[in-house]
Amino acid sequence: MVKPENNSIVIFGASGDLTHRKLIPAFYHLYANGLLPEDFAILGVSRTSYSDQEFRDKLKQSLTENEKIDEATLVKFCQHLYYQALNTSDQNEYGVLKERLDTFKETHNTHGNAVFYLATPPSLYGVIPECLAAHGLNDETEGWKNLIVEKPFGYDLESAISLDKQIHACFKEHQIYRIDHYLGKETVQNLLVFRFANGMFEPLWNRNFIDYVEITAAEALGVEDRGGYYDGAGAVRDMFQNHLLQVLAMVGMESPAAINADSIRDEVVKVMQSFKPLSEDDLKNNLVLGQYTESEVRGKHYLGYRQEPGVAEDSRTETYVGMKMFIENWRWNGVPFYVRTGKRLPTRVTEVVIHFKKTPHPVFGAKAPENKLIIRIQPDEGILMSFGLKKPGAGFESQEVSMDFHYDKLEETNMLTAYERLLLDCMKQDATLFARTDAVRACWKFVQPILEYKENPEHLFGYAAGTWGPKEADDLLASSNREWRFPCKNLANTDYCEL
Amino acid sequence: MVKPENNSIVIFGASGDLTHRKLIPAFYHLYANGLLPEDFAILGVSRTSYSDQEFRDKLKQSLTENEKIDEATLVKFCQHLYYQALNTSDQNEYGVLKERLDTFKETHNTHGNAVFYLATPPSLYGVIPECLAAHGLNDETEGWKNLIVEKPFGYDLESAISLDKQIHACFKEHQIYRIDHYLGKETVQNLLVFRFANGMFEPLWNRNFIDYVEITAAEALGVEDRGGYYDGAGAVRDMFQNHLLQVLAMVGMESPAAINADSIRDEVVKVMQSFKPLSEDDLKNNLVLGQYTESEVRGKHYLGYRQEPGVAEDSRTETYVGMKMFIENWRWNGVPFYVRTGKRLPTRVTEVVIHFKKTPHPVFGAKAPENKLIIRIQPDEGILMSFGLKKPGAGFESQEVSMDFHYDKLEETNMLTAYERLLLDCMKQDATLFARTDAVRACWKFVQPILEYKENPEHLFGYAAGTWGPKEADDLLASSNREWRFPCKNLANTDYCEL
Repeated sequence: MVKPENNSIVIFGASGDLTHRKLIPAFYHLYANGLLPEDFAILGVSRTSYSDQEFRDKLKQSLTENEKIDEATLVKFCQHLYYQALNTSDQNEYGVLKERLDTFKETHNTHGNAVFYLATPPSLYGVIPECLAAHGLNDETEGWKNLIVEKPFGYDLESAISLDKQIHACFKEHQIYRIDHYLGKETVQNLLVFRFANGMFEPLWNRNFIDYVEITAAEALGVEDRGGYYDGAGAVRDMFQNHLLQVLAMVGMESPAAINADSIRDEVVKVMQSFKPLSEDDLKNNLVLGQYTESEVRGKHYLGYRQEPGVAEDSRTETYVGMKMFIENWRWNGVPFYVRTGKRLPTRVTEVVIHFKKTPHPVFGAKAPENKLIIRIQPDEGILMSFGLKKPGAGFESQEVSMDFHYDKLEETNMLTAYERLLLDCMKQDATLFARTDAVRACWKFVQPILEYKENPEHLFGYAAGTWGPKEADDLLASSNREWRFPCKNLANTDYCEL
Repeated sequence: MVKPENNSIVIFGASGDLTHRKLIPAFYHLYANGLLPEDFAILGVSRTSYSDQEFRDKLKQSLTENEKIDEATLVKFCQHLYYQALNTSDQNEYGVLKERLDTFKETHNTHGNAVFYLATPPSLYGVIPECLAAHGLNDETEGWKNLIVEKPFGYDLESAISLDKQIHACFKEHQIYRIDHYLGKETVQNLLVFRFANGMFEPLWNRNFIDYVEITAAEALGVEDRGGYYDGAGAVRDMFQNHLLQVLAMVGMESPAAINADSIRDEVVKVMQSFKPLSEDDLKNNLVLGQYTESEVRGKHYLGYRQEPGVAEDSRTETYVGMKMFIENWRWNGVPFYVRTGKRLPTRVTEVVIHFKKTPHPVFGAKAPENKLIIRIQPDEGILMSFGLKKPGAGFESQEVSMDFHYDKLEETNMLTAYERLLLDCMKQDATLFARTDAVRACWKFVQPILEYKENPEHLFGYAAGTWGPKEADDLLASSNREWRFPCKNLANTDYCEL
């Protein structure tokens, strides 16, 4: 595998949770597996003052607490870590940052290549690029300069456009890497391979053979310590607008002309632009918002959402969203996509379920079950197919059976985590798995009517924590004699998570 | 389940191997499982003279030697067994048979229903029906009369037509049950359910998506003690003309209008009549005949075919046949069917392999493996699908993975053996799984050019016992860059039989 070119990585927000929990462990693993450049420097930046050594010690400690670490490797890895205290809102202070990067050119042979990672609160997403540009740190005359932006990419359509304008004033689109860690997951990428590397699935992948598609992203956790943030966001912004619509786009897109960033993202944005815009009727009939309430589940007590720390006592923020939506193009016209996500559901699971149409001629009787293909994104990544076979014995009765493939069957154990994959891709100038500006905008545009509606929703349904959401979400499908793979009524089933 | 009506079963050839090894055990199991009629009588007929009691004792002994028997059930079962010595070629002796059947009307309340099972040498297939008819035992005025005929149904096209004429002079087609035990196998019947009860396979089941089809019926045994019979028959008559072409028809047929004997057999015969007739070129280029030779396999010595007891020292009889053939219709035009069977191959396995076409646009590179669907008929009955998924790690490389379903996963343990299923069907007047006269004739017609060719074949290739046949059979596929699932070159692989 070709290694990335030598470069500096500047992490803004270096004292924050993301840096400690995700970024530094990702860099360490990439390093331990020999995937990082020959030479590189990681520079942590935040307001607090540390020396390089203090910063190294801090990271060392949090790494050894949480990961299996090889001591000798860790020592070598730490020689690439540096720290710079900085008021990131103050342009004048960035001179010292430039100096340090210049030093790395000598000490780590970085050729002026740099990644700037914004692991900061979103309020700084506009400011930091401006400050960098003011010191010429957006200039690619000597070495490439990449800017990684964490979600959320805006708060609604207007703010997203405005943020993009700010960033685009300083960095070109090819320099901007909007990170959506869902796209770093093997199984999400596998959607493309599964669909377009096989001769037997793609011919079935359209309105002629598919009855409906389900996409579920369930979380078992509540809002934990993120109540303050979450109460201003809600499930639509936190999960639906980005992760779920990205997964939906991978399920629905046409075959790309080639496997490269432009070709794939051209197709992703095309399908997003084909989402049928939401009418008032859709908001009324095809959207279900819910909020979890206090409950006892299997002997354990759970707080209701409004009792969580940081959440307003009369909050109308949704912790569940279920929707029926359509893609208006030749492939998908008339095929409903049922999409849902929620907190405090019975389990953590993300999966896509393709429901195939029944046979046109029910020669073995109408009872034959429909065919299903389940693509499990997490956990227990894999694929399950269920179909009819002959019931042994006299006659020709059909019964449902299934076969499955689990990713962990593969001998390859060297799977990259989402962050590892995405960091590596960015250092290799491969933007395939990062959100492009037009895709982000298309998603906000689609979601905007929901954002407006949910400010003052006609209904916000309660659901007991630990259940599959409001029963009204079942009704979205029941009117067409359809069903979620895990319907609300199976509340007591603890085995729902099996692929 | 509805039980068959009361009836008498007359087995001609009652002292023979088939009766002891297959028929009586089948009847016993059906009885033990409560599937036989409320009342019935089984009358063994052959030349040797036994009393009813002697016959019962003989069967009891061979049953208890080979099967798990419940003693109390066996005692009750034996009360339904009778014996009649008869010179089956002598019409005059059949009066006593008629008398006994008349008695069963009283003693076993059979209403005159009767099954006549010809488990005799084929030379008697014409004679016995004539004798039965001479005594009115073909007459259905009082009770139905079914005639079960064992294969071979003739020796070539001419003799098959002539045999059919003889039988049809005495019995109507609806009374004739030509038994091909392959059709009694669950997995062969399952071909219909798999294809026509599922929405996701049938759309792919044609020339647009299938590259080629393999059908393999391999036997590990040699000719054993059947050398005398086999040397006059060969693999083409023994396996290819009946079993393999039947399986091929189930793979290739159109959806029947309904699940009944006429509708299904109409479709079976239609596809058989669409087999592309064999030209001289086909016999020369698309047919490989082989004969096994003496060898050492994994430390064991095997006789060559010509050394087997009952086989001529200069025999030119084929123990292996491999063919490339076509079905000329809208669904299959241009799709080669590679069909092979042989004795003394490395294992016993019968399976169908559907090779799907490669993707039309190799977006992930040309190396992506083709999709395969393997339908295993025996042993380890089940289905395996192999396809491409993303190789974990950077990039979008595809790798072959597979998922499978094994019939023995089903909880239902009450599977019927082929003979049990077919005997039961016959007693229920269901001829679905029996060969109809037009189908038998269509197969002989297709095979006739091979029969003539093999009398004096240009090539008869030797292959070492315990290998996958002559390497020339690989060449049938290799010229189109195709391969058998178990090619000749994997001679040493003892794990080939895994589904």
